[in-house]
Amino acid sequence: MRVIVYGVGAIGGAVAAALCDNGQEVIGIARGRMLWAIKANGLHMQSPVYDKVHKFECVSKPAEIEFQSDDMILMCMKTQDTQAALEDLRAAGVTTQPIFCLQNGVANERIALRIFPNVHGVTVMLPGNYLDPGEVAAFCEPKFGMFDIGRYPKGQDADDARLARAFEGSMIVPFLHDDVMQSKYGKLLMNLQNGLTAAFGKDAEFEDLYEAAKAEALAAIEAAGITWQDVSGKSDPRRSEIMRMGKIEGLKTVGGSTAQSLARGGTVEIDYLSGEISLTGRLHGVPTPVNDAVSALVAAMARDGRAPGSADPEGMRRALKL
Amino acid sequence: MRVIVYGVGAIGGAVAAALCDNGQEVIGIARGRMLWAIKANGLHMQSPVYDKVHKFECVSKPAEIEFQSDDMILMCMKTQDTQAALEDLRAAGVTTQPIFCLQNGVANERIALRIFPNVHGVTVMLPGNYLDPGEVAAFCEPKFGMFDIGRYPKGQDADDARLARAFEGSMIVPFLHDDVMQSKYGKLLMNLQNGLTAAFGKDAEFEDLYEAAKAEALAAIEAAGITWQDVSGKSDPRRSEIMRMGKIEGLKTVGGSTAQSLARGGTVEIDYLSGEISLTGRLHGVPTPVNDAVSALVAAMARDGRAPGSADPEGMRRALKL
Repeated sequence: MRVIVYGVGAIGGAVAAALCDNGQEVIGIARGRMLWAIKANGLHMQSPVYDKVHKFECVSKPAEIEFQSDDMILMCMKTQDTQAALEDLRAAGVTTQPIFCLQNGVANERIALRIFPNVHGVTVMLPGNYLDPGEVAAFCEPKFGMFDIGRYPKGQDADDARLARAFEGSMIVPFLHDDVMQSKYGKLLMNLQNGLTAAFGKDAEFEDLYEAAKAEALAAIEAAGITWQDVSGKSDPRRSEIMRMGKIEGLKTVGGSTAQSLARGGTVEIDYLSGEISLTGRLHGVPTPVNDAVSALVAAMARDGRAPGSADPEGMRRALKL
Repeated sequence: MRVIVYGVGAIGGAVAAALCDNGQEVIGIARGRMLWAIKANGLHMQSPVYDKVHKFECVSKPAEIEFQSDDMILMCMKTQDTQAALEDLRAAGVTTQPIFCLQNGVANERIALRIFPNVHGVTVMLPGNYLDPGEVAAFCEPKFGMFDIGRYPKGQDADDARLARAFEGSMIVPFLHDDVMQSKYGKLLMNLQNGLTAAFGKDAEFEDLYEAAKAEALAAIEAAGITWQDVSGKSDPRRSEIMRMGKIEGLKTVGGSTAQSLARGGTVEIDYLSGEISLTGRLHGVPTPVNDAVSALVAAMARDGRAPGSADPEGMRRALKL
């Protein structure tokens, strides 16, 4: 069995490192300078208690892999890149292999299930950063983080157990979950901060906007009849033992993954984070003005190539009359 | 008020012609040779009882349009192009203008609602063909066809009434609908033929495969609790008066829109037609082997640039043990 890590960024890098530590065969799929750095020098993974370089096979696209029936495929790209990635997997001959969606939001599993029959969700609780080509970091200790793993839309099966075993005892702690989307909805609520951090900067004051965005989300999710599980730092008792925020000497982060996308001048995942709440609200008659505004602002910042943190929360408060 | 026809192909062309006949201001968005043909010579629209050339403004992308608050936007591209089209609309300043999804399948409305608050569905019953740059045809008489129009996810509002009025008395007969997605699911059942026609050719014998695909679809849709409305030729009494298949001297068609995509060497919509049934079945525990096989085959034909009708239905029957 091989684990295909599709998208070696912050999360894919941490995953690859944890699996390599366990002696698990890994094939990475990476782009551009990341690919060439890993090919040349391996992947340098850091955490407050971890500093290693791992060598593993890395390719630029699925077509370079001769897929086997017991391969497990871990989707680690952003949601806006999922559809094209799935089409490349299909073109490369993937059929019934398990597709695990490690991405934020709750949209990827549905996108994957349209093309592939065997789809799984993974809630990734692992604050990480892409630093430089070949360099990624996770900020928690003693472990990088923890994963909830389950079949989509529900349940758990032998593939989930197989992936959990691959992580057992590694720097990522796996938990099997009977309804993993509940956990992913809980993570989505936390990810409503991503757009705010990206727009206003991680040190800005926007707690009021986050609380308003979260209140909208709770109302929309409740109207939709969706149950969710609180996996936040305040409420999830697993976190205190497994993942406490630590420091890595000499490293600083721009914030969440959306801020990192803005910093790199790339596309953003905002339509699947704040935008998921707007969609849910619109489907069920719940107004979501704060999430609408965050999506519109961050999408505009990405289009215009604006830096993370360059917007002013006062402007949003005024526009929303908050 | 202006009607923006985004994607001037067979359907967008018929829509533009019908609206021009009514004196309605139309702005088309078209690509490549279609754009240049319309700019140079106008749009030539034919039906068994209609043969006219219409001149209207046509641009290559939304950014060339100065959007106004009472513009109505009609999405006439294929589903696989919807996401990028919506992002271009957002970048061009569209916010609360109504977005009408005229495409096949039932996925576009949800894709649009993630970005825009004011989304509508239109069931397009209008057999048409793109012929050549600047040339499209509709095959029914006395009218080109008919549209069911309603708000997404449900209901009808002033924008629906406004669009219906724009078509009133034209070659396209509008009907307001309180639950337009029921009508679009009925159309989707008919569109399960698209992949079969594309794969095997419109004169091949595949009625057994279509019946099997449709039986899967009915089981999947029922398991999902989705209600639908039969809008097929056999059952919808509106059709006999409005749209009877006719002949246009000198024209022949390769079949449905998916076959036309294969003939042009383009991408195909199959994941949102047969693939919608696979997704629904997978979400609700209903096996959909025929629809799975059709999606996989037609996607492979598109990837490999194979001609419509070049596959053999016997191969599919053997593989499925039918």
